[in-house]
Amino acid sequence: MIFDILTLFPAMFASPFEESILGKARARGLVTVRVHNIRDHAEDRHQMADDRPFGGGEGMIMKPEPVVKALEAVRAEGPPAVAVLLSPQGELFSQSLAWEFSRLERLILICGRYEGVDERVVHFVDREVSIGDYILTGGELAAMVVVDAAARLIPGVLGNTASPEAESFREPILEYPQYTRPREFRGLRVPEVLLSGDHEAVRRWRRAEALRRTRIRRPDLFSRLKLSDEDRRLLQAAESEDDSGDQHAREVIG
Amino acid sequence: MIFDILTLFPAMFASPFEESILGKARARGLVTVRVHNIRDHAEDRHQMADDRPFGGGEGMIMKPEPVVKALEAVRAEGPPAVAVLLSPQGELFSQSLAWEFSRLERLILICGRYEGVDERVVHFVDREVSIGDYILTGGELAAMVVVDAAARLIPGVLGNTASPEAESFREPILEYPQYTRPREFRGLRVPEVLLSGDHEAVRRWRRAEALRRTRIRRPDLFSRLKLSDEDRRLLQAAESEDDSGDQHAREVIG
Repeated sequence: MIFDILTLFPAMFASPFEESILGKARARGLVTVRVHNIRDHAEDRHQMADDRPFGGGEGMIMKPEPVVKALEAVRAEGPPAVAVLLSPQGELFSQSLAWEFSRLERLILICGRYEGVDERVVHFVDREVSIGDYILTGGELAAMVVVDAAARLIPGVLGNTASPEAESFREPILEYPQYTRPREFRGLRVPEVLLSGDHEAVRRWRRAEALRRTRIRRPDLFSRLKLSDEDRRLLQAAESEDDSGDQHAREVIG
Repeated sequence: MIFDILTLFPAMFASPFEESILGKARARGLVTVRVHNIRDHAEDRHQMADDRPFGGGEGMIMKPEPVVKALEAVRAEGPPAVAVLLSPQGELFSQSLAWEFSRLERLILICGRYEGVDERVVHFVDREVSIGDYILTGGELAAMVVVDAAARLIPGVLGNTASPEAESFREPILEYPQYTRPREFRGLRVPEVLLSGDHEAVRRWRRAEALRRTRIRRPDLFSRLKLSDEDRRLLQAAESEDDSGDQHAREVIG
């Protein structure tokens, strides 16, 4: 899969994609990340890329021509692409959108200044995406997030080390707590059930913990969950017990 | 303000904070970003930082000792700090949390592998934060997002070029559309009202557009808005008109 990134700050992208899983995926040719300087595609390289807003107000607004010209030039250099403008006004990025993007041949990501991009740019992109309800100095970090979240879902990228299928947000539920060695760390013990070797008991405990923490921490997600009969039983049992993992740890500490 | 970042991939942070607004803020001493390798603080530098999960399953889980030891060592080197574990199971990062963080003397950000961090680490941090409902390969990009969103709110960082107060998410509303030169770009014209010089008309148009796009794009935010009587009138008027900015642009194109 090809990611084309359009930015006024290409140097920001030098290090984040070199490391770890994404670095390996690039080395193995599974993922291509190309970073384009919007200024290089503008008619006049010394042209200002931003200007003051019509109607007044503080902050500078990215001009439409350099962005649209860069987008058209990059679109012409490669397979069909979906073009996304990173913007706090876009639809919220989500794991389902990451899956959708991961199936594309090419994704073009346009990094706006977050003080604003001329609204007319929107007519030349396929969608506007926001990574969350907060303001960044620019779309660059948002583009990195989208590349990372989508790229790791491409077959072969995670290798055998992890399965993306099993993780949070295929259904809107948080992950269950995870533990590794040692069995005891500063008086905090791994829940007994995880050491029991009873796979069915482990499965039930994990499901119950995932349901419980989603209900407590993210009622917005919990309300969208489709609970099975077993889910309801597990949740009820977990909440009437005192010896669950979280509770246990709290007792040891407090 | 000091940001201390704990990670297994310190090299990822080489370039993103060099550029643009954050690079200047660091150069002017307004913001300090220190990146710490979790391995350097573990007892045995060759020790594995992760291990297989108890109870079975794919993926590797970050062990508790190296993280907690690194956190304790970094906590000891500086002013009081709030320690945050970046995790998809945390509370959602938001602009109000960015404001809260921007007022701290020091923030410690712990980058977990997103396949999992041993749950016992949670007992040693002040909070868990997620930047959105999607899975990344690790917490590194999430830490960059938190640093960027908080740092730009520190007095002096944005200088005179923009006012963070005026932006989205002080109240849960999307920004109004912004336009800059030229007045006409590929047949798309800047809405007349923005060229009128009538400040009150501009203010009303912008408020109406912000309300309207929030209602259409983000009903979840819209339902949390406290509408004034004027807001209700503006919204009603905007929706009964055909000559608004968005509509106008659509007509010119289509």
